[in-house]
Amino acid sequence: MSNFAVFSKTHSNRVLSINKKKLIVALRQKKQRDERSLFVVEGVKLVCDLLRGGMKPTYIAATAEALQTSAIQSVSCEKAECTPKEIAEVSLRQSGQEMVALFQKPESKAISKPTDLVLLLDEIQDPGNLGTIIRIADWFGIHTIIASKTTADAYAPKVVQASMGAIARVSVVETDIVEYLTINRDEWHLPVYGTFLEGANIYNTQVVTPSIIVMGNEGNGISNAVKPFVTDKLFIPNFPVGEVTSESLNVSAATAIVCSEFRRRNF
Amino acid sequence: MSNFAVFSKTHSNRVLSINKKKLIVALRQKKQRDERSLFVVEGVKLVCDLLRGGMKPTYIAATAEALQTSAIQSVSCEKAECTPKEIAEVSLRQSGQEMVALFQKPESKAISKPTDLVLLLDEIQDPGNLGTIIRIADWFGIHTIIASKTTADAYAPKVVQASMGAIARVSVVETDIVEYLTINRDEWHLPVYGTFLEGANIYNTQVVTPSIIVMGNEGNGISNAVKPFVTDKLFIPNFPVGEVTSESLNVSAATAIVCSEFRRRNF
Repeated sequence: MSNFAVFSKTHSNRVLSINKKKLIVALRQKKQRDERSLFVVEGVKLVCDLLRGGMKPTYIAATAEALQTSAIQSVSCEKAECTPKEIAEVSLRQSGQEMVALFQKPESKAISKPTDLVLLLDEIQDPGNLGTIIRIADWFGIHTIIASKTTADAYAPKVVQASMGAIARVSVVETDIVEYLTINRDEWHLPVYGTFLEGANIYNTQVVTPSIIVMGNEGNGISNAVKPFVTDKLFIPNFPVGEVTSESLNVSAATAIVCSEFRRRNF
Repeated sequence: MSNFAVFSKTHSNRVLSINKKKLIVALRQKKQRDERSLFVVEGVKLVCDLLRGGMKPTYIAATAEALQTSAIQSVSCEKAECTPKEIAEVSLRQSGQEMVALFQKPESKAISKPTDLVLLLDEIQDPGNLGTIIRIADWFGIHTIIASKTTADAYAPKVVQASMGAIARVSVVETDIVEYLTINRDEWHLPVYGTFLEGANIYNTQVVTPSIIVMGNEGNGISNAVKPFVTDKLFIPNFPVGEVTSESLNVSAATAIVCSEFRRRNF
């Protein structure tokens, strides 16, 4: 037996190779995801959701049982059968470590005049909030999210997890939002909605589509750079009016209500 | 100098005592919070929010600067001036460790026939979701949440943090929800609303108050034990109807929309 054969045998026992492990861990960093145009997805359900959404995996490492899932069997990409322990070594999950996959990041959509609602995110920092917002957009048929460069990365593991597969159906375009809003002001002339304490009652104010809805940062709301571009200020009334309540709603809760209100009128 | 004086001097240098540190860390456990009827709150803003909501602290450890806050100065309870490093030792925060306080858990409200909307939580497991739901309830003037014993603890640090002070204005009553719903069925006869894929379009279905709104578990929705008690099934329509979208909304996003719809009708 040659030395090479010995090496090869050892190597095939350890199918989640050291290089792949390093790659999966490296992809926790946005810089690496951007450079390699890849992101990591964990769990059979989430991987299947993204496959259904038309996303393309380049690599799947999973337990023998998980590889038997029919949707996984029909995928042609590099696959590795490995133990839950091996997957746990690269996993961010506490339990259920049966599959980790690498997916290609979709190419960023070119910016063009919106023909429907667009959500514009002004520094949403919490990955859970961003994932929830992507899921809300998907539920309400909003196909484009414009995200400031200060917003969490849509392909970060926690965001992908919280979006529950919605990331496959919603384009998140990271861009300079002030430039975007300047183009709108000068060329597209679409209404720009934002929620403010002094805004008009959203329940009985006329709202139009296509338009741009701005959602602001968790702590500070809509930034000073973006405020001048808002053409229509809205307010989600607390109840009863004038009662002392929370100072604001969580940004994903507010996004849910605003999107619901826009779609309700066009139902 | 007596031995006692030496001990006393040492002790006063280290004002966040070892016993208090142990207590603060122990209170991360629900069992300890229940037994001692105390919970931990971090950060000047959150402590001040709870004070404004009428909650009573029993102990505040903070930096000299944080103790100067006027709302804190006017509180009479045991206070300890200490360094950010000492606070960091017991903190769950990554940064801004300038104050940690112990508050008394309010006495649980007796169960009585609702005179307004009540939210009933059927195994909400994620602390962030529960905190967001408490904040939504507060915004919409819902003063009572009935939580199953399988729901996250409302006084867990992450829940208190996510509720942003709303916990001071919303009573979260942990109880056997099947018993509660049985009392309602047999005595109170209030409508019980729940969201289901086969429910009626919430936008154009009549809804009444007082009533009970059930929100189900993140993964499994409303449990089989609770389903038979739901008298009115509602559905938040996705858009456009029939499009392939996410399977569901995040439970806090759904709660936001349902509460908004109930209040909008009574505006």
